[in-house]
Amino acid sequence: MSTFHSLDRSGRHGHTLRMKSYAKELWFETAKRYELIDITKQVEAALADSGIAEGLCLVNAMHITASVFINDDESGLHADFLEWLEKAAPHEPVAKYRHNVGEDNADAHIKRQIFGREVVVAVTKGAFHFGPWERIFYGEFDGRRRKRVLVKIIGE
Amino acid sequence: MSTFHSLDRSGRHGHTLRMKSYAKELWFETAKRYELIDITKQVEAALADSGIAEGLCLVNAMHITASVFINDDESGLHADFLEWLEKAAPHEPVAKYRHNVGEDNADAHIKRQIFGREVVVAVTKGAFHFGPWERIFYGEFDGRRRKRVLVKIIGE
Amino acid sequence: MSTFHSLDRSGRHGHTLRMKSYAKELWFETAKRYELIDITKQVEAALADSGIAEGLCLVNAMHITASVFINDDESGLHADFLEWLEKAAPHEPVAKYRHNVGEDNADAHIKRQIFGREVVVAVTKGAFHFGPWERIFYGEFDGRRRKRVLVKIIGE
Repeated sequence: MSTFHSLDRSGRHGHTLRMKSYAKELWFETAKRYELIDITKQVEAALADSGIAEGLCLVNAMHITASVFINDDESGLHADFLEWLEKAAPHEPVAKYRHNVGEDNADAHIKRQIFGREVVVAVTKGAFHFGPWERIFYGEFDGRRRKRVLVKIIGE
Repeated sequence: MSTFHSLDRSGRHGHTLRMKSYAKELWFETAKRYELIDITKQVEAALADSGIAEGLCLVNAMHITASVFINDDESGLHADFLEWLEKAAPHEPVAKYRHNVGEDNADAHIKRQIFGREVVVAVTKGAFHFGPWERIFYGEFDGRRRKRVLVKIIGE
Repeated sequence: MSTFHSLDRSGRHGHTLRMKSYAKELWFETAKRYELIDITKQVEAALADSGIAEGLCLVNAMHITASVFINDDESGLHADFLEWLEKAAPHEPVAKYRHNVGEDNADAHIKRQIFGREVVVAVTKGAFHFGPWERIFYGEFDGRRRKRVLVKIIGE
């Protein structure tokens, strides 16, 4: 985290204003190959930890077979998402993908491309400037191993 | 909106430089279920209002059945977009989606995932740093009610 | 590029801290209609040129039939990506798209919507805060002419 200070020339009325930059990595290891996990609380904890009240927050998957996206926290919808993605880019047959030489996750790279790598969320008055139903999700498409999400916040 | 000032110590050569953060919500209520609306002028008005000359501008749908995206302002292409999305994630039959228990908009959540929630646009020398045909669109996939788009700008 | 300075009032303990904004356009002209090009080194050169150590870097296609995305630098996977996109939004028959009146690139606009316009990458301690396999790609879906990618970095 880096800061800078704007100095009052008299020293009497001095106040400190800071341009801050904050980074935190969140770790995940899912039990299943595919999982959609609500990470809103962890990202909000990072925002509180940063002390940033106005700015932009980037949240991105650090691995290329996973997504970070914003949508609804509703289990039926999540089942629809995974069913839709499986139909759009099926895991099987593994051999139909040229990437799958010693690997079997080409479908996960494609699923991540569709759902996206990242979201950028506005920070206003110390909180995420969310609409009524916005929640941040980690979308795992090739799980069962340790992977990371990056939270990077800049502002003041 | 928040600002800060960098103060000259003599007071004579003083100039004020400001780190600014600006937020504005734009409201929409479409007549149809699906609409693609060019919002470039409204977003440019927000940029002018912010007074920010260098920075980044986030424009995001605040609702999870709508998108903000950048593409061409051409009505034939927009018809192609909507036809393609309808084939990729059909509204009907409503009952095939598990989300649609008391709702009928699972397809709109999926369409929004494909087209994305947000764009980030560079601000350079007081204007959006656009390519020759870039226009910002609001993509409504479950309209006929009031919904919002957020414009958040940080810079100086 | 714009900078500002935070001034020490005594002049003795003075150090200069800078809020910087940097923009650079990268030009591409592909030999083929479709190409996926690793541009990580060019974007890293822009970051080095900016002198920014903490902040956010936006990388976006300035044209609306191209993408910028982050994924794996593996030729088999790239073949899978292009094959998948061609099946999802075929170039032929050209006449099935309403956009293709004097043009033939409606499919390229759709491919770009799926793969996205931009990425935002964190800058931490002077380098891109990448996961182990993250590489930045320019995705050209209607090539054989000069087109641009914008790199915009803000921070300090």
